[in-house]
Amino acid sequence: MASIDAGIEADVLIWANVRGVDSHGVQLLSMYIDNVEQGTMNCRPDVEVVQESAATMLVEADRSFGPPVTVFTMNRLMEKAKQTGIGWGLIRNLTHQGAMAYYTELAARRDMAGIAFVCNPPNMAPTGARKAGVHNSPLAIGVAQDKRISIPEEWALDENGDPTTDPDLAKYVRPFGGYKGYGMALMFETLSSLMMGRPLLSPWTHEHEDRPSMYSQNSVVAAIDIATFTDPEQYKKDVDDTIAGIKGLPRQDEAKEIMVPGDPEKATEKDRLTNGIPLPVGTVEKIFAAAKQFSLDLPPELA
Amino acid sequence: MASIDAGIEADVLIWANVRGVDSHGVQLLSMYIDNVEQGTMNCRPDVEVVQESAATMLVEADRSFGPPVTVFTMNRLMEKAKQTGIGWGLIRNLTHQGAMAYYTELAARRDMAGIAFVCNPPNMAPTGARKAGVHNSPLAIGVAQDKRISIPEEWALDENGDPTTDPDLAKYVRPFGGYKGYGMALMFETLSSLMMGRPLLSPWTHEHEDRPSMYSQNSVVAAIDIATFTDPEQYKKDVDDTIAGIKGLPRQDEAKEIMVPGDPEKATEKDRLTNGIPLPVGTVEKIFAAAKQFSLDLPPELA
Repeated sequence: MASIDAGIEADVLIWANVRGVDSHGVQLLSMYIDNVEQGTMNCRPDVEVVQESAATMLVEADRSFGPPVTVFTMNRLMEKAKQTGIGWGLIRNLTHQGAMAYYTELAARRDMAGIAFVCNPPNMAPTGARKAGVHNSPLAIGVAQDKRISIPEEWALDENGDPTTDPDLAKYVRPFGGYKGYGMALMFETLSSLMMGRPLLSPWTHEHEDRPSMYSQNSVVAAIDIATFTDPEQYKKDVDDTIAGIKGLPRQDEAKEIMVPGDPEKATEKDRLTNGIPLPVGTVEKIFAAAKQFSLDLPPELA
Repeated sequence: MASIDAGIEADVLIWANVRGVDSHGVQLLSMYIDNVEQGTMNCRPDVEVVQESAATMLVEADRSFGPPVTVFTMNRLMEKAKQTGIGWGLIRNLTHQGAMAYYTELAARRDMAGIAFVCNPPNMAPTGARKAGVHNSPLAIGVAQDKRISIPEEWALDENGDPTTDPDLAKYVRPFGGYKGYGMALMFETLSSLMMGRPLLSPWTHEHEDRPSMYSQNSVVAAIDIATFTDPEQYKKDVDDTIAGIKGLPRQDEAKEIMVPGDPEKATEKDRLTNGIPLPVGTVEKIFAAAKQFSLDLPPELA
């Protein structure tokens, strides 16, 4: 893997750990190594800009690791946004992207609003269905499995398509927000996969000759330049004022504070930048094993 | 009101009725007349394009009725999208827009993907709050009031900020999809109101000198040109194939069919284009009263 790509990949993983999103942190390393060995993830992709206009681009990722190709695309979209107000990019055939908020934060740091979403083969049952037909990320169920606790009946269906409260039997997730969540997942497919001529749902929902033999995903990223529309400094003040207004609302008895998106991650970041990132023994052992596999020296304090 | 604007307004209202979205149909007429008399809705707005780039525009609506200014903006954005792939528009200080799907369908008819959303002063309680801090549309509660049925505890808070199952006591709606729905509503404010320097939430969540004395709203509309990225005919085939795959999934016992977004509206449209639009007596009386107020002749078959 090119060292610049490896650096971006490492930064995305550690960024997730620092913010407490450990599901998207360094524990993914061993899965990535497996995927590279199986040919699913490509360390040396031939990334190509297939289409480009003043405000848009379509990128063929050639099974790239998600972070290098997404950072490349986001950077170029931000250049476009500086010129035309918005850059809207489609990335097809890439692999795991890590924590998507990393890319929207790239935009925020440059006084832009970032948008990022991802489409994958189906794992979520549409309203009224017994099998998966759309995609969404079932992170909460994994936590229930690890904690050996049951899940609400609204969360998942078993392999027969019946609702289950046992996280081990959960095969298909059910939409958060009912049919609205299902509809939104379907709209993401139309704005990403179908817009790049690479459907990810239909090859799995019915018999298809061209069902892909290997996993990869599609993604949309975009950047909107705030200065095109309003003064960025005023925008930041307005964001702060909006947050202050929400945090100042009267609270439910059980609520210690009213949070805004990013609050739990920022609190964890503050703690971990001071006290370090606690890693499960299993994760550490996997990282050591990977270092050994590739004959890498461990840092002296770990060796 | 300019006759071309009145024609667009009428088309948006009747389009909603034809598709069964009666909450956004001709029953709004009397509310609109009241708002015009109060000065909230402006029949003769001085609509101005405040900012414009190859791919974006910012429009000051001067309290225009929503439909004329939104159709104007969407048409110009579609021209931009033909050139640059995407047109992204912000409309500030407009009034009720009717059924938002009307504008995305304008894009679809021209082989484009449409995006449209709206921001209003707060009516929805953020997770953990006892009062409104973000905005969303509480249509389902109105139905429960009309039908004299109770609502699930997750739907609304009363004036004290406690959950209620009585639709008449519902004062603040609660987010669909829990904190994710709240977070999304907050993101809409950052992408629309704050991006045009016209916050709609913060003036209400805490004491503000510049709290607006009259209602108006902000909106984002966008068009993405499919041909920029892929063959539109293939896109339509892929959409049909995706829908067929979802509809062919095994069904839950209680589900007669698996629907996709727009299915209920299309079924109603087919019925109403043949059999006409049933209107409640109260709505008809209000329309007759409005016709009398403005000395308009009724169609001979109604007079």
